[in-house]
Amino acid sequence: MSRLTEMGKAAKEASFVLAGLKAPEKNKALIASAEALEKNMDKVLAANKTDVDTAVENGIKGAFIDRLTLNEKRIKEMADGLRDVARLDDPIGEVLWMKTLDNGLKIGQKRVPMGVIGIIFEARPNVTADAFGLCLKAGSAVMLRGGKEAFNSNRTIVEIFREALENIGLPKDCVQVVEDTSRETATEMMRLNGYIDVLIPRGGAGLIQSVVQNSTVPVIETGTGNCHTYVDESADLDMAVNIVINAKTQRPGVCNACESLLVHEKVADKFIPMVTKALKERKVEIRGDESFEKAGAVPASEEDWGTEYNDLIISARVVKDIDEAIEHIRKYSTGHSECIVTENYTNAQRFLDEVDAAAVYVNASTRFTDGGQFGFGAEIGISTQKLHARGPMGLKEITTTKYIIYGNGQIRQ
Amino acid sequence: MSRLTEMGKAAKEASFVLAGLKAPEKNKALIASAEALEKNMDKVLAANKTDVDTAVENGIKGAFIDRLTLNEKRIKEMADGLRDVARLDDPIGEVLWMKTLDNGLKIGQKRVPMGVIGIIFEARPNVTADAFGLCLKAGSAVMLRGGKEAFNSNRTIVEIFREALENIGLPKDCVQVVEDTSRETATEMMRLNGYIDVLIPRGGAGLIQSVVQNSTVPVIETGTGNCHTYVDESADLDMAVNIVINAKTQRPGVCNACESLLVHEKVADKFIPMVTKALKERKVEIRGDESFEKAGAVPASEEDWGTEYNDLIISARVVKDIDEAIEHIRKYSTGHSECIVTENYTNAQRFLDEVDAAAVYVNASTRFTDGGQFGFGAEIGISTQKLHARGPMGLKEITTTKYIIYGNGQIRQ
Repeated sequence: MSRLTEMGKAAKEASFVLAGLKAPEKNKALIASAEALEKNMDKVLAANKTDVDTAVENGIKGAFIDRLTLNEKRIKEMADGLRDVARLDDPIGEVLWMKTLDNGLKIGQKRVPMGVIGIIFEARPNVTADAFGLCLKAGSAVMLRGGKEAFNSNRTIVEIFREALENIGLPKDCVQVVEDTSRETATEMMRLNGYIDVLIPRGGAGLIQSVVQNSTVPVIETGTGNCHTYVDESADLDMAVNIVINAKTQRPGVCNACESLLVHEKVADKFIPMVTKALKERKVEIRGDESFEKAGAVPASEEDWGTEYNDLIISARVVKDIDEAIEHIRKYSTGHSECIVTENYTNAQRFLDEVDAAAVYVNASTRFTDGGQFGFGAEIGISTQKLHARGPMGLKEITTTKYIIYGNGQIRQ
Repeated sequence: MSRLTEMGKAAKEASFVLAGLKAPEKNKALIASAEALEKNMDKVLAANKTDVDTAVENGIKGAFIDRLTLNEKRIKEMADGLRDVARLDDPIGEVLWMKTLDNGLKIGQKRVPMGVIGIIFEARPNVTADAFGLCLKAGSAVMLRGGKEAFNSNRTIVEIFREALENIGLPKDCVQVVEDTSRETATEMMRLNGYIDVLIPRGGAGLIQSVVQNSTVPVIETGTGNCHTYVDESADLDMAVNIVINAKTQRPGVCNACESLLVHEKVADKFIPMVTKALKERKVEIRGDESFEKAGAVPASEEDWGTEYNDLIISARVVKDIDEAIEHIRKYSTGHSECIVTENYTNAQRFLDEVDAAAVYVNASTRFTDGGQFGFGAEIGISTQKLHARGPMGLKEITTTKYIIYGNGQIRQ
């Protein structure tokens, strides 16, 4: 039995215990973990320093180092995150419906834990605490496989949680870190059917595609968002500028940021100068069609329409009408978040009905696609697939259901 | 662009039209398809005869030929099945919840079609009509890839549906059959991400495992059931015999049939002779532990505990108590349907809580795990995975959701 299979087995065993816990017991574990994390802050900072030093020695720099680096504030935030999760409603045990069949069988559908959740992520140590907290509250054990650059940080954080769990009499295998960060072990984890019930990749497009391509364990695909904002003929143009600027620049590096702007030809003459000015003030590069080129944009290539920049760049073009806008979105959308700005009732409804995405907006920034903003209290990622969960995933999205049937001797005729 | 990609593209286009149809339009299409099927019965029978003759020539026999063979009655049943689906409630368009956030955004979760559903199945031509009907009612286009032995039957049935759709002005690519039944094309279909939104295999364990292993498109795993019945100390033993006999023999070849019997040691002396007699009367072979051997059972091997016989065979053993029963089930269950027969309140609740399966029963036959029996009106398969759908899948289980958001200029702070 490989080390990973042993871990899977241990996680499954722990998951049976976890599934039987009541909400206060899980909350106690979360709070104890938060306290332990704060108490052992020095240990975490030391482990993180090793990771950061190694990364710097290896010539890594910029945003990667920023995401990898922990400080007191960030560790405190991780601990507070666990306390926040403790305050959320327990998703487990809810009976979604129950009815009595003609033969007297009472049948209900009940929300139960997933079992064992695998998370494969990159070099952000805060994912370790987030994922542990959400999975534990949802009654599932978690196996974490982070990027090798954050290995010491992840292992130290997880060791602190495991000790905290053990101290209150819970199985420490509720959370485990995969110690071998080789690609082979990642692939083995993607094929641990029978132990891991669902695998959630968190990270860049490359990581997510690798998991989708290689996993035989069911996957929830998260991530990429080539999000559009369409400014309709009847739009309030000041509102449209506000929404585009917010959706593009409030946090350009994330998946719900606007990447592409479509403008109805009847308002193009008026709107293009307005939006160009506002975007330029915020140092956004515009890659546009001829109409935008006339206003100073760089010419857009075919590739631009399909690109998620995650940067201060936006593609922009004029469309003939809402039909052409919907057609363009169907062709290039990744199905994340799409917005129409309009005062036209029929067009608003059409856009909501006809655009196939996790979140469709009328007159609001796509930046709202987020578990916290939607009021879920937490988020383990944003699903861009249609199976199981679509859009921001909170606690309920990492549970499953079972049918419970009460009989008194019924047999099938 | 490969033929399969072209088909995927055509299916996606058709799915946009389907997604916009109202219930009466979909019902009209279903009824027209049913009528066309009956009107063209001779054509279907002729195509089916070609398939059956070829299979017989190739030395195939028994149950396989029975499943492959169509007759007037079976075609009429297929047509009536489509009419039944027309009578079901439309699952599409329901808003599951809607609320207003503090910032005034109105956000709701709405049930929408999946898009394109792929079905890979074996040589049962009736799956063609079933799957078409359910997918169409759920607003999705379907790509069908049946076993090569049923190819002529499937193609003829699908051609009839496509003509019926075209006659009432709907895109015929709402349903397509994969004409190349090679293994390579099946594998290509499993990797048609971007066109097929979900793949559902229907058939034996080999087919299902092949899809799980090779698919990069999200899969709903259906099928295998190593279902247990546990007779507790306090069970009504006559009821227990009835339930075991029904679960094992009412239709032994299906996934919700009982494959393994566990008996509490305190009732073993009384129950084993009762159940052995009843099983023998129905020609069921028992593969048992020592206690059952004494009553004439064949000795069970370790392999027996994990085997789904799909036949008149049952494995049987004595357990010390409910803990040992639950432990045994955890080890060998495929997570399909599990039953306890008991009059003990606490044990009933413990079994429902602690056994991790799609359907858990107290005092009723596992044969009830079925979309029709559960009152869903239809069934496209029984999911044994935890993602998206678990247990019998009706129309709702082949839909997805989207978030719809009504704003009036909100931007994120």
